[in-house]
Amino acid sequence: MLTNPRSDRVKSVRALSRRSVRSRTGQFLAEGPQAVREAVRCAPEQVRDIYVTAEGADRHPEIVDAALAAHLFVHEASPEVLHEMCDAEHPQGIVAVCRWAEPTLSAALGALPRDAVVCVLTNVRDPGNAGTVIRGADAAGADLVVVSDSSVDVSSPKVVRSTVGSLWHLPIVTGVPVPVILDALRARGVRLLAADGSGSTLLPEADLTGPHAWVMGNEAWGLDAEVRDACDEVVRVPIHGRAESLNLAMAAMLCLYASAESRVQRH
Amino acid sequence: MLTNPRSDRVKSVRALSRRSVRSRTGQFLAEGPQAVREAVRCAPEQVRDIYVTAEGADRHPEIVDAALAAHLFVHEASPEVLHEMCDAEHPQGIVAVCRWAEPTLSAALGALPRDAVVCVLTNVRDPGNAGTVIRGADAAGADLVVVSDSSVDVSSPKVVRSTVGSLWHLPIVTGVPVPVILDALRARGVRLLAADGSGSTLLPEADLTGPHAWVMGNEAWGLDAEVRDACDEVVRVPIHGRAESLNLAMAAMLCLYASAESRVQRH
Repeated sequence: MLTNPRSDRVKSVRALSRRSVRSRTGQFLAEGPQAVREAVRCAPEQVRDIYVTAEGADRHPEIVDAALAAHLFVHEASPEVLHEMCDAEHPQGIVAVCRWAEPTLSAALGALPRDAVVCVLTNVRDPGNAGTVIRGADAAGADLVVVSDSSVDVSSPKVVRSTVGSLWHLPIVTGVPVPVILDALRARGVRLLAADGSGSTLLPEADLTGPHAWVMGNEAWGLDAEVRDACDEVVRVPIHGRAESLNLAMAAMLCLYASAESRVQRH
Repeated sequence: MLTNPRSDRVKSVRALSRRSVRSRTGQFLAEGPQAVREAVRCAPEQVRDIYVTAEGADRHPEIVDAALAAHLFVHEASPEVLHEMCDAEHPQGIVAVCRWAEPTLSAALGALPRDAVVCVLTNVRDPGNAGTVIRGADAAGADLVVVSDSSVDVSSPKVVRSTVGSLWHLPIVTGVPVPVILDALRARGVRLLAADGSGSTLLPEADLTGPHAWVMGNEAWGLDAEVRDACDEVVRVPIHGRAESLNLAMAAMLCLYASAESRVQRH
């Protein structure tokens, strides 16, 4: 059992809270039972080590069993060790060091189904927003999330936590400049729908039949004008009351679910 | 100009970050230009004092002008004073001490339109969630938000901030036990729709024609079984992908917008 919170191993896990270390090592930390369960279930080949307290193992025997069945390394650790490893205040007794693995943009586009729904996040800065949108894209059955460069690091602890496991449910491509993303999507025949309060098309009236991508802006300043102009259509979520706007995650959710609903009605 | 961050006035404003003080004084603090602008515009009678830095007044002259036109007390304060008054790290140069005023549940129900849409939050604990749902309810054109007792205090700084002004856009009733809320709504002829992952009715198939209330559960444990059973119907937002669930704010948003859309189609 690991009991020394000052050991090199603990320090190297703790260091994954730094973006530079994640980038250099290609590893990141998944904290808590939901994230670890989904990592083991959906991408065991990306899981390097699991650390679990005695209490964590008691509470989540099915995760430990699945990890052992997949021949993963499961280490028992003291609560002090787990606390020291984590960014979260309450890691809930189980964490996993994972390898970051993502498809290239062209591979991800090549694998899209004919009626694809894609979510493009441009300049998203808040970890909670990014994670919530990834979780929502998963729930809405979207086929791909693309996160532009100059966005939050998707492998950061807060993003990983707020995806609640969805990180492993659908392909996510990161680090690509916005113009490259838009060109590649267009070349693949994917219509580009900018989600923006300035849009002239209301969401319930938007044509969501063909393959399309929702292009979302930054949470504070919205979509850059040149990005909006580069899209095929600008779509606005109607505001029925007196609110000035919706936040990024809410707008993304409504757009992605409208796409899902349209797809259900066609099948 | 107020320049002493240790004055009694500053201390009494700062004390509003404590629930007990808000409850005793019936006052709370609205921080930042959006919240203050909407307070002045929608409920000037509830604004007791406005504190603004020279920079804040320069950046938002329209708020100061509107406040003066409404004969409100506008005090210039140093940045140190404003910082000391606030819960927010960056109060953006303007805050308002407001009186909490809310209708009684029966008055609010009496004022509902014939095709009312109501949002009921039971046991919501996270300030950001509560604020986001209030903002979303506003955007979706809901007619009333009812927040049960044993929920987060809606006048807390974090909730007020995350409503981005929507706090003043629609009636909000707080502090009522859940059974009392449900009985009062039913007596008024409002159908009770529990939003819950266990529901047998899918959201797109729910009948949203008459007056109805969305009854939302706690962010972690969902709806209490007895509350769910007390509702007329349990409605589930469909999950198209592999996500286990949606978070409270996302689910509320989708339900409330489905109601809005149904209302638009009928008019």
